[in-house]
Amino acid sequence: MHPDRIRQIIKQVKAGKTSIDQAMEELKNLPFEDMGFAVIDHHRQLRSGFPEVIYCQGKTTDQVTAIGRRILEKGGDLLATRADEKMYRSLKREFPEAVFHREAGVITVKHSKGGPKMRGVIAVVCAGTSDIPVAEEAAVTAEVLGSKVLRIYDVGVAGLHRLLARRDDLRTATVIIVVAGMEGALASVVGGLVECPVIGVPTSVGYGASFNGLAALLAMLNSCASGVTVVNIDNGFGAGYAASVINRA
Amino acid sequence: MHPDRIRQIIKQVKAGKTSIDQAMEELKNLPFEDMGFAVIDHHRQLRSGFPEVIYCQGKTTDQVTAIGRRILEKGGDLLATRADEKMYRSLKREFPEAVFHREAGVITVKHSKGGPKMRGVIAVVCAGTSDIPVAEEAAVTAEVLGSKVLRIYDVGVAGLHRLLARRDDLRTATVIIVVAGMEGALASVVGGLVECPVIGVPTSVGYGASFNGLAALLAMLNSCASGVTVVNIDNGFGAGYAASVINRA
Amino acid sequence: MHPDRIRQIIKQVKAGKTSIDQAMEELKNLPFEDMGFAVIDHHRQLRSGFPEVIYCQGKTTDQVTAIGRRILEKGGDLLATRADEKMYRSLKREFPEAVFHREAGVITVKHSKGGPKMRGVIAVVCAGTSDIPVAEEAAVTAEVLGSKVLRIYDVGVAGLHRLLARRDDLRTATVIIVVAGMEGALASVVGGLVECPVIGVPTSVGYGASFNGLAALLAMLNSCASGVTVVNIDNGFGAGYAASVINRA
Amino acid sequence: MHPDRIRQIIKQVKAGKTSIDQAMEELKNLPFEDMGFAVIDHHRQLRSGFPEVIYCQGKTTDQVTAIGRRILEKGGDLLATRADEKMYRSLKREFPEAVFHREAGVITVKHSKGGPKMRGVIAVVCAGTSDIPVAEEAAVTAEVLGSKVLRIYDVGVAGLHRLLARRDDLRTATVIIVVAGMEGALASVVGGLVECPVIGVPTSVGYGASFNGLAALLAMLNSCASGVTVVNIDNGFGAGYAASVINRA
Amino acid sequence: MHPDRIRQIIKQVKAGKTSIDQAMEELKNLPFEDMGFAVIDHHRQLRSGFPEVIYCQGKTTDQVTAIGRRILEKGGDLLATRADEKMYRSLKREFPEAVFHREAGVITVKHSKGGPKMRGVIAVVCAGTSDIPVAEEAAVTAEVLGSKVLRIYDVGVAGLHRLLARRDDLRTATVIIVVAGMEGALASVVGGLVECPVIGVPTSVGYGASFNGLAALLAMLNSCASGVTVVNIDNGFGAGYAASVINRA
Amino acid sequence: MHPDRIRQIIKQVKAGKTSIDQAMEELKNLPFEDMGFAVIDHHRQLRSGFPEVIYCQGKTTDQVTAIGRRILEKGGDLLATRADEKMYRSLKREFPEAVFHREAGVITVKHSKGGPKMRGVIAVVCAGTSDIPVAEEAAVTAEVLGSKVLRIYDVGVAGLHRLLARRDDLRTATVIIVVAGMEGALASVVGGLVECPVIGVPTSVGYGASFNGLAALLAMLNSCASGVTVVNIDNGFGAGYAASVINRA
Amino acid sequence: MHPDRIRQIIKQVKAGKTSIDQAMEELKNLPFEDMGFAVIDHHRQLRSGFPEVIYCQGKTTDQVTAIGRRILEKGGDLLATRADEKMYRSLKREFPEAVFHREAGVITVKHSKGGPKMRGVIAVVCAGTSDIPVAEEAAVTAEVLGSKVLRIYDVGVAGLHRLLARRDDLRTATVIIVVAGMEGALASVVGGLVECPVIGVPTSVGYGASFNGLAALLAMLNSCASGVTVVNIDNGFGAGYAASVINRA
Amino acid sequence: MHPDRIRQIIKQVKAGKTSIDQAMEELKNLPFEDMGFAVIDHHRQLRSGFPEVIYCQGKTTDQVTAIGRRILEKGGDLLATRADEKMYRSLKREFPEAVFHREAGVITVKHSKGGPKMRGVIAVVCAGTSDIPVAEEAAVTAEVLGSKVLRIYDVGVAGLHRLLARRDDLRTATVIIVVAGMEGALASVVGGLVECPVIGVPTSVGYGASFNGLAALLAMLNSCASGVTVVNIDNGFGAGYAASVINRA
Repeated sequence: MHPDRIRQIIKQVKAGKTSIDQAMEELKNLPFEDMGFAVIDHHRQLRSGFPEVIYCQGKTTDQVTAIGRRILEKGGDLLATRADEKMYRSLKREFPEAVFHREAGVITVKHSKGGPKMRGVIAVVCAGTSDIPVAEEAAVTAEVLGSKVLRIYDVGVAGLHRLLARRDDLRTATVIIVVAGMEGALASVVGGLVECPVIGVPTSVGYGASFNGLAALLAMLNSCASGVTVVNIDNGFGAGYAASVINRA
Repeated sequence: MHPDRIRQIIKQVKAGKTSIDQAMEELKNLPFEDMGFAVIDHHRQLRSGFPEVIYCQGKTTDQVTAIGRRILEKGGDLLATRADEKMYRSLKREFPEAVFHREAGVITVKHSKGGPKMRGVIAVVCAGTSDIPVAEEAAVTAEVLGSKVLRIYDVGVAGLHRLLARRDDLRTATVIIVVAGMEGALASVVGGLVECPVIGVPTSVGYGASFNGLAALLAMLNSCASGVTVVNIDNGFGAGYAASVINRA
Repeated sequence: MHPDRIRQIIKQVKAGKTSIDQAMEELKNLPFEDMGFAVIDHHRQLRSGFPEVIYCQGKTTDQVTAIGRRILEKGGDLLATRADEKMYRSLKREFPEAVFHREAGVITVKHSKGGPKMRGVIAVVCAGTSDIPVAEEAAVTAEVLGSKVLRIYDVGVAGLHRLLARRDDLRTATVIIVVAGMEGALASVVGGLVECPVIGVPTSVGYGASFNGLAALLAMLNSCASGVTVVNIDNGFGAGYAASVINRA
Repeated sequence: MHPDRIRQIIKQVKAGKTSIDQAMEELKNLPFEDMGFAVIDHHRQLRSGFPEVIYCQGKTTDQVTAIGRRILEKGGDLLATRADEKMYRSLKREFPEAVFHREAGVITVKHSKGGPKMRGVIAVVCAGTSDIPVAEEAAVTAEVLGSKVLRIYDVGVAGLHRLLARRDDLRTATVIIVVAGMEGALASVVGGLVECPVIGVPTSVGYGASFNGLAALLAMLNSCASGVTVVNIDNGFGAGYAASVINRA
Repeated sequence: MHPDRIRQIIKQVKAGKTSIDQAMEELKNLPFEDMGFAVIDHHRQLRSGFPEVIYCQGKTTDQVTAIGRRILEKGGDLLATRADEKMYRSLKREFPEAVFHREAGVITVKHSKGGPKMRGVIAVVCAGTSDIPVAEEAAVTAEVLGSKVLRIYDVGVAGLHRLLARRDDLRTATVIIVVAGMEGALASVVGGLVECPVIGVPTSVGYGASFNGLAALLAMLNSCASGVTVVNIDNGFGAGYAASVINRA
Repeated sequence: MHPDRIRQIIKQVKAGKTSIDQAMEELKNLPFEDMGFAVIDHHRQLRSGFPEVIYCQGKTTDQVTAIGRRILEKGGDLLATRADEKMYRSLKREFPEAVFHREAGVITVKHSKGGPKMRGVIAVVCAGTSDIPVAEEAAVTAEVLGSKVLRIYDVGVAGLHRLLARRDDLRTATVIIVVAGMEGALASVVGGLVECPVIGVPTSVGYGASFNGLAALLAMLNSCASGVTVVNIDNGFGAGYAASVINRA
Repeated sequence: MHPDRIRQIIKQVKAGKTSIDQAMEELKNLPFEDMGFAVIDHHRQLRSGFPEVIYCQGKTTDQVTAIGRRILEKGGDLLATRADEKMYRSLKREFPEAVFHREAGVITVKHSKGGPKMRGVIAVVCAGTSDIPVAEEAAVTAEVLGSKVLRIYDVGVAGLHRLLARRDDLRTATVIIVVAGMEGALASVVGGLVECPVIGVPTSVGYGASFNGLAALLAMLNSCASGVTVVNIDNGFGAGYAASVINRA
Repeated sequence: MHPDRIRQIIKQVKAGKTSIDQAMEELKNLPFEDMGFAVIDHHRQLRSGFPEVIYCQGKTTDQVTAIGRRILEKGGDLLATRADEKMYRSLKREFPEAVFHREAGVITVKHSKGGPKMRGVIAVVCAGTSDIPVAEEAAVTAEVLGSKVLRIYDVGVAGLHRLLARRDDLRTATVIIVVAGMEGALASVVGGLVECPVIGVPTSVGYGASFNGLAALLAMLNSCASGVTVVNIDNGFGAGYAASVINRA
């Protein structure tokens, strides 16, 4: 809760406009809504310029729909990740403007105009075709949060010339998201080629000793290129969000 | 190598100012220096505004001194991490302006004036007294690379009021580095309180099932707060560097 | 076997009321029943005030039904965890008073009145909507074992104000169960806010480097808040049981 | 910070006894002291009845002494764990009443009389002679926090009769702490023998596939005995603290 | 190949009864049969008294049937583990005397009379009802290989009296197989009660931090009871086989 | 890109046959084709003598077909691994000469005659029947890349005479691929018998503590036989490819 | 406690030779001695024929000496493992007949004549010179417990002919202990050559991905040879003890 | 043992030149020497062209000296890895021609002229200065075994131009050894640049989540570049040996 609000409440009490009990109530009554199974933070968009996000995995279609409805009714935008076809159809019925980014598994509803001002372009780079769903989750997230996105796909380090051919493109970006499974070496190589912040997203693409993305995760955490930070395995959303925060003017 | 330079070489060949063999030589003769046991990138500071860094762990004092000497002779600044007293004394003998940040294990020599323009302050927050050496590595790195740094230490989540009391300070920062061992919960809590980029540095502080920082690392990677990215365990330098890149105007 | 019973048997032998062979038989004939595939402890409820529990996972519906029948025929209450619809219908046919707590996966039959006297309320707190099934397993267990339960759901640390708003509620509890997946930070934060015993239940909610709950488990074990103890991943029952034992007057 | 205090401040403002700025100051001026490298919570003992604890590992002797001095000067009791001889001698010089529990690695200074009322005895049980240092850390912690402690040592399950001979003793306890390395089976066996809360402390005693206590930790987390909760490997302090919280009347 | 056979071949060559080329052929022509996808060791039963075993997992029904047919045609007995209904029906069609031990997943065909002489009874002890399939794999294996088997099921350590009541039975065994999941403590407790060899079989029964049997495996490997050896997780066959080898007179 | 090509371009510019902009274009226009979701390296076969390979796992049938079509239209050969029946039928429709190696999961289309000259035979050895699919992936890969392959299957070390009987065959090979799951000991034993390069392929065959091939992987990495190198778990293709590279004259 | 003893006590009570209180006392007064920091089982040798063993690691020299003294004063034999020079000298001073098996780290004192009758010879086989200390711990243990031991050292599978040359020796053994680090393949190969029980002892010999013996441990647990059981990493004592129990007539 | 030798013995027996007992003796008397603590394979060099190797880690100086002496007395060359100064001085005393490659930790004595014919040059590439000791172990091994070695050091992927500048050198090699710690990306990048066999050697260089080389190991095993095989962490010798075997004409 913002200190200005506390000061205001205190002032009102002093001025006799608010009783002590009302002040106490207000202090409890923070600007979120408790739905029993979920607590929605309606002030988030106001506070951060970014909408409240529904992480759909582990939630039922009914829960996702109910939460989405409350957010949209309050006038917020909607960003729902790890969503499936069924959730989309359920929301679409009530909110025809809902869009399903199928490859990314993301549902979006955009009510608001504008959004926070951004500094530049976010590049989303991925190593192989199988990494594209995670890359798309990152790209769609970044787009919904207001950035221009440049997609550079299937440029893994085994064919280095594919990547080097895009070096100029990479250098136009303000932030770069590198999505790679297997040995995750792409993050280090990109990190060595550019001077902007690089966010690595290890993916669970691979088999055997990739241990569902552990190999790529460890590789990115141990990157010999300075300036690379890392998010969770397959966490395209997290990378897209962090890149947007960095890109905010 | 920058494409403009390639274009220039081609132009000079065409104009007859450069022979084909000279051009070939130049293409091989990239702006780094091979010392046999180490290859120094003298153009780095020019390119990125940040000095070449010596990671001293696993190098001998002689190697560190020789690399440092070459960098400094070429007019670069020096940033040597994971350095010890002996390395410091060896460099100090030749470069009396060398400074040893003992708690951080960092040696710095600053020749250049200015540096890249920065957007704001970097806050370095740590959970406990034992995390301070890593926090200092991050803080000194960020300072050498040109940022103002605000230190907020020993504000772990077990005594939440200690952290909440510093909320206004946190909100003045452009980037926040959160350094925490044990369960690493501080990254999530800080991430939930602010709207700026947060970089988590798990530390190996803890015992038993902390498994030398694994617990904090996993916690930070799984942070429920959006916008948190992570660097390697105890990698204060990496966080300080990444924060500086983000903070660059 | 209770020492008083041994003393009694010895007395009876001495008094000639029991033959040596009868005494030997009794010593073998402990108060449990061997069904071949399962051995039921009918004295448990007498001894501990809590009913024998059937852990249904890995058992067939027939086995669960047979064990349940024997317990109920002997007059005990029934608590069956990790149960499914089919097991419920099978028991319901014979014992119409059986109740299925669907979200928790728990079947209960309550014959006895009363139960052990309890000291206060058990609060069950969870971080996100996806953690609710585990939280419900804990809550239903605690209720069946005789405690009042206060549910506080979806108050993860990324939106700290949601949790702080419930601080007064938390402080009314005698024991608190904290259910959280991902980075499990909620246990530490709650542990720092209250003075009563806190039991952490890591859940397998999360993905990638959560490694099916390992991240939350390690986080809770390394909690910087004193007084937090931990049970197995997703072990809502274990937490509900331990909290009940602590809550017993 | 306690809600009563907030209410009081608001009342004083309303009554004109406190200016708005003073109220703001108070709200920032929470009852802890920032020493730069450490932030001490002086109200802890008031709030919880238990003293502030110094976890000495990773701190210098100077830091431990400075923190200890501030706590003791404010009238608090002192409990310093993972302490060494040198820290003890440094504190002893200023506070001759300091006591060093050598086997436990714990320094204590007891100023206050009494402490919170306790419900009963805490039993500390350990499996082997090598587990005694951890058991002692638990026992001393529990004693300093106000409980009577019953020590039952070297009763590992390989010689079950040693443990069964102490069954009556076990049953007199309100809480039991079980300290065991190797396969950690003692926690399950004790948990099956008693009806009170059992806290397992896995130790790093063992070799090879004990992986520094991992085997015992996993065993205790998977205990087939209901009501067993677990703390970190070798965390005698944590067990002693949690047992004390449970034991508080 | 047995040295006596080598000596015999050499003798025959010397005596002119065997040509050099025939001897060479014989040396290549060892007593197994190569089916392309499988190589059958027909001399095994002769050599060890135990039949060749088919481990069915990862083999097709056709492969299992073909291998089984060749073994049975050569007059051997058959023991096929990890078999399913379909494999059973396929073999049953050709060999009506085939028996399917459904709970154990084992198919047996017994042609031979007798078998190696055994020293005593093998006891198979398991901790819970869910461990029975693995226990049965061990028990059926031991029976097929010629031992009497005593089954003692659902005697986990949480209800120690259930186990202690069977102590006399345990002491009649020549070898004991202990099958347990979760924390696997039963192996240590049984190991402490008897003087005969104990073979621990960890099972994948459990959840969360049992990590599919890892917890029980580590526990058994770290058993504080001397004389306990361990086989792979869920490896009932391995334990039954090893116990039979030990039991052989 | 090959240095000769760079020299040629520079020459042409100097000679006025190529404009600076054309030269720049060429430098960007490397010999691969960007399909948006995939970037194909058409020069690979020219460069290495081996065709571009499609790793089908994680790709849709449409993607595999589209990539395959582009490769085949450009006159390359096709090698598609981890392919399924559906992908095969889709490619077969357009390229009737496509062959599906079902057990290996490999689709091949061979247009070119010849291929690189090979030094000798590659032996593919496997431990058990269940390892055959991985062994076949290796064998088919090696055959498509131009080598003669000798298959030696089901010769695991538990029946050492089966392997020793094939010793002469092993010694005819130029490179040996050893495919084994469970404890992976076959790689060390073969490595000790021969003087040629040995490539170990651990498989995920096994259960329990094989941890999906980890046991075999670690065993092969720790092989006491010199000259053994290792590829990823179940990576038959990788071994077949590496063996072919080694076998190239 | 043996059932015959219970029967005897009951008889004596019935016959009036023992009072009820005396009987109760006896039931508590089991045949072990509580030294505070250790509880000694004086009846072990009587019961099992094998002496009580002191595992010295984690015990002080004083503790080892005190425990050893009590055992020897009561007339038992002594077997102290993981002992060092200092412990040896301390015991030697009081018991000049103490012997230190330096390479094995074992102290023995043999008072008793004879011991349990054994069935045959125990072979101790090791893979490399570095495995000898663990092999010696096994061998000395087996000798002290009464078996003849045949040592076969440095016969790792990389030089298979070294092992095959000793095949006849191996076949004379009643039980075989196989001690191996690195990839631990020796256990499987020996297991395939013999028909007697084989106990694998993985050692921590190796580096890198041997992970302190984990590679060898997993290999042995996954042995494709039936009849191999495993003890903890470096646990020579455990193997020697288990082999002795198996070898007992 | 070679089949020709068997044939010869059989022939001699037939011809009456060898008695049956002599033939038996010969079959036992394989060409190695048993020193009790070590068994030396004197025929190795004859057989493979490469000398017997002493792996010194875990051996005493006396053992290393004794083994070295026996090898050299029999006329073999010596290659001793993981050796220290003391072992060197001990061997030097008896064999003044011994050479100590200090950085590599390798002792060599070269008696023989020539050696097996090699096909080309082995390149040893390493990522950073701290990887040099492992790279030197590989390089010295390859040199002693008869290959020319080209060293290319400190060319990690973070400064890609350093590596690309050496592309022509890389392409002259017949086999390439890539030595890298941290994220080990260099193996994939080199593997993508060349067409020859690449052997990856992960090193334990790094900290935190490099887990002593695990990160680099997993990265190399999951390399997206075909044709990369891997040896154990820090196993420079293994890579040097395998490269030599591949390089043999």
